[in-house]
Amino acid sequence: MAKIALGNHREAAEPGCIRAVLAEVVLTFLFVFAGVGAAMTAEKMVGGDSIMGLTAVALAHALAVAVMISAGFHISGGHLNPAVTLGLAVGGHISVVRSVLYVVAQLLGSVFACFLLRYLTGGLDTPVHTLAAGMDGLQGVIMEIVLTFSLLFSVYGTIVDPNKTKGIIAGLGPLLVGLVVGANILAGGSFSGASMNPARSFGPALASWNWTDHWVYWVGPLLGGALAGLVYEHVFAVSPSHVPLPRDDEAF
Amino acid sequence: MAKIALGNHREAAEPGCIRAVLAEVVLTFLFVFAGVGAAMTAEKMVGGDSIMGLTAVALAHALAVAVMISAGFHISGGHLNPAVTLGLAVGGHISVVRSVLYVVAQLLGSVFACFLLRYLTGGLDTPVHTLAAGMDGLQGVIMEIVLTFSLLFSVYGTIVDPNKTKGIIAGLGPLLVGLVVGANILAGGSFSGASMNPARSFGPALASWNWTDHWVYWVGPLLGGALAGLVYEHVFAVSPSHVPLPRDDEAF
Amino acid sequence: MAKIALGNHREAAEPGCIRAVLAEVVLTFLFVFAGVGAAMTAEKMVGGDSIMGLTAVALAHALAVAVMISAGFHISGGHLNPAVTLGLAVGGHISVVRSVLYVVAQLLGSVFACFLLRYLTGGLDTPVHTLAAGMDGLQGVIMEIVLTFSLLFSVYGTIVDPNKTKGIIAGLGPLLVGLVVGANILAGGSFSGASMNPARSFGPALASWNWTDHWVYWVGPLLGGALAGLVYEHVFAVSPSHVPLPRDDEAF
Amino acid sequence: MAKIALGNHREAAEPGCIRAVLAEVVLTFLFVFAGVGAAMTAEKMVGGDSIMGLTAVALAHALAVAVMISAGFHISGGHLNPAVTLGLAVGGHISVVRSVLYVVAQLLGSVFACFLLRYLTGGLDTPVHTLAAGMDGLQGVIMEIVLTFSLLFSVYGTIVDPNKTKGIIAGLGPLLVGLVVGANILAGGSFSGASMNPARSFGPALASWNWTDHWVYWVGPLLGGALAGLVYEHVFAVSPSHVPLPRDDEAF
Repeated sequence: MAKIALGNHREAAEPGCIRAVLAEVVLTFLFVFAGVGAAMTAEKMVGGDSIMGLTAVALAHALAVAVMISAGFHISGGHLNPAVTLGLAVGGHISVVRSVLYVVAQLLGSVFACFLLRYLTGGLDTPVHTLAAGMDGLQGVIMEIVLTFSLLFSVYGTIVDPNKTKGIIAGLGPLLVGLVVGANILAGGSFSGASMNPARSFGPALASWNWTDHWVYWVGPLLGGALAGLVYEHVFAVSPSHVPLPRDDEAF
Repeated sequence: MAKIALGNHREAAEPGCIRAVLAEVVLTFLFVFAGVGAAMTAEKMVGGDSIMGLTAVALAHALAVAVMISAGFHISGGHLNPAVTLGLAVGGHISVVRSVLYVVAQLLGSVFACFLLRYLTGGLDTPVHTLAAGMDGLQGVIMEIVLTFSLLFSVYGTIVDPNKTKGIIAGLGPLLVGLVVGANILAGGSFSGASMNPARSFGPALASWNWTDHWVYWVGPLLGGALAGLVYEHVFAVSPSHVPLPRDDEAF
Repeated sequence: MAKIALGNHREAAEPGCIRAVLAEVVLTFLFVFAGVGAAMTAEKMVGGDSIMGLTAVALAHALAVAVMISAGFHISGGHLNPAVTLGLAVGGHISVVRSVLYVVAQLLGSVFACFLLRYLTGGLDTPVHTLAAGMDGLQGVIMEIVLTFSLLFSVYGTIVDPNKTKGIIAGLGPLLVGLVVGANILAGGSFSGASMNPARSFGPALASWNWTDHWVYWVGPLLGGALAGLVYEHVFAVSPSHVPLPRDDEAF
Repeated sequence: MAKIALGNHREAAEPGCIRAVLAEVVLTFLFVFAGVGAAMTAEKMVGGDSIMGLTAVALAHALAVAVMISAGFHISGGHLNPAVTLGLAVGGHISVVRSVLYVVAQLLGSVFACFLLRYLTGGLDTPVHTLAAGMDGLQGVIMEIVLTFSLLFSVYGTIVDPNKTKGIIAGLGPLLVGLVVGANILAGGSFSGASMNPARSFGPALASWNWTDHWVYWVGPLLGGALAGLVYEHVFAVSPSHVPLPRDDEAF
């Protein structure tokens, strides 16, 4: 089975790694700008809790995730999400050093997008992920675990696993991963918020300085992502050590 | 023409088969969690019978089916649905032994997803498929037959038939099969419920203990699925015995 | 440049042709069942003239067209539409004999779907295409010409032209053709109805016996389809005679 | 790094170039007919500022852009948009001479579509892009810069960069570029209008003779497109001069 790869401090100075980290900043910025922008649009046009607003938000996230993973895949792997990075790290598909740099980049991209949206909209709040009335923290964490497990299982099954070539075309995975984000927001958006992504939750919380339930969106997604990586690698990956650790200029 | 393959009891103990059955549990769980979750969201936000709620639910099912077939295709074939399994069995594309294991796995995945959704939402009902007011059982069964025929015809035409390579890219089939589920829910959702899938109907019925019209969602989809398999194999599959029975680690 | 191919009466008795004609019946039946079913759902849930109903209807058509072209492409070419058949015939991509058989098959499939929908829904009207209040026949015909030109231009550019391989993947065309149908319904649905397809219009008109404006949906789509075929072949197809007339078991 | 290519006046008379320019007229006409048509539909059915109307409009643009880039990619590259043409010109992927011809063609196609829509709808206004109440010109320009940067980054990452083949399938790019347009309209449509395309804004402004904020939709998209081209070429394109200048019959 795959082992976690530490990497070393020299990796961070290599051109391929610097370019990948910059790509994570840009891609996460563009994704969060579209996703949080759509949430602000829904909030402005129809108010918080409407099925129409939720559908528009789910659609925007699905499309933006699909495109941004695709657009940057050859540069950084298009993670956009600390839960994706962790889920791939537990399977040995990215080194620990690079993972840390990616997460910092994702947080930066998200924060920059949210502050810019506040400025551009004349100071509107960036809507934060919170739990629905009556839902406790455990329920929220479990729902985020399930939804993020679903996301990472899709990443492994449609992008990482080389055996997928028996089923879907190599290269369709990024689009499909976007689509599962849309489905999961339609399912969980009105309950746990369906973040599946600590960076996506962090930017709006900082920009609006609203930390209600914020811990849920770190604990749930990271646990769900890591769990999916472990389950996929140990149960469903047919041949052990089937994916070699990427060279420095590759993310998967 | 293809013949039904019995298989034998030893098949159930082979690693490839066990892995495939586990995958059906996981994939059906993730699909039903998204699909029924979206139905609960629509029910909570806008009440039962709205075109907006139906559209959101159709979208969630389309995307979740597309992704889950794709993510598990190389492991189990990504059936998620007893009607798909039966429709492929009548064409000889999966053995009877393995079919029974798949159906049990699909029911387990669906039931687990529905009970978990009840817990996570503080006990909300999981909406069940029922016939519209004024529709009798025969009408319901026929509509489910047509919609499931449509689903299985798409499975055969875009995934199973090797001649499809003259038209669409190998590997696009799972996405297209998701899309036809979405179209069919938009068409039949407000009449028969557009289940097309006994496992999808069983979980919510058990979790909410509501068996109204439940038999319709076994009889209709299974008849429609089997009919499509027979029609496709005997009328539209150009070369007889064109798809060899898969080896143990393959679903198609 | 391509010439129209007559074909001969023996073609109609060949197994490949019979299978293709049967496929056109089944595919058009399944497409119209989803499309008109969605229109009946919108009518029932929200009434005739709502943006939400139109969006649901557009989505259902987009997805059903995409899947049904894909599912039957290797059997009949997946026309589903007399305007597509005519548009391909003027470019020499299908013989006149086979075209006539296809059109009859498409009308049969559509009529059967609409009568079945009436029975299954307890006699609900199948909504017919009509012009918006204040729109005259010429305006309606021109709009249908433009929308069907758009459809056939997409068929040529993404499926028929072998030079497309410089741009999009061979095999993605059927999905894209479905998507343009969706876009065009969102644009023209509330004005001309955005039929683009005489068979799609004929079934509901017969089943509800409502022939208001019906001629528009024959004249407009057929003119638009033929025009696109001629323009594409004579202006945009780089190498003359670039697509050989298909053998009997092929549609393109 | 890539240099801007001037081209010369003889290029404009070559058959491949004439065909490409004509294709830009047709493709932009068909795209704007669908996009502005959907905006007129939303305006007519639900009034200006509704989340449902915005979603329908975003969907129509996403699908029409995806299909029209795909349908004409092998002829002209499927730009449809002066910001795309400029963004590719700064990377040396299209000559200056041809760029100017493309922009004229795009404006013509858009204008023709908008006047035809006015005639077909009995004189309804073609809705123009304007800034939301309270938004100033700088905010509007910056939002259009960000959204168009996102569009061009996707064009480079999914279509232009040959290294993309490590991630997504060659040929999926045009579909993905359509999807990002949809996501960005959902995000910015209610704030800056989310034009990302001077030609798309010019047609409705001329046909309705309403030039409010019109300059924003030239300055923002052109700056954003050029910026993305420069950033991608100088930061993310791994090998310098990795894309040769196309021959006369190729756009990329």
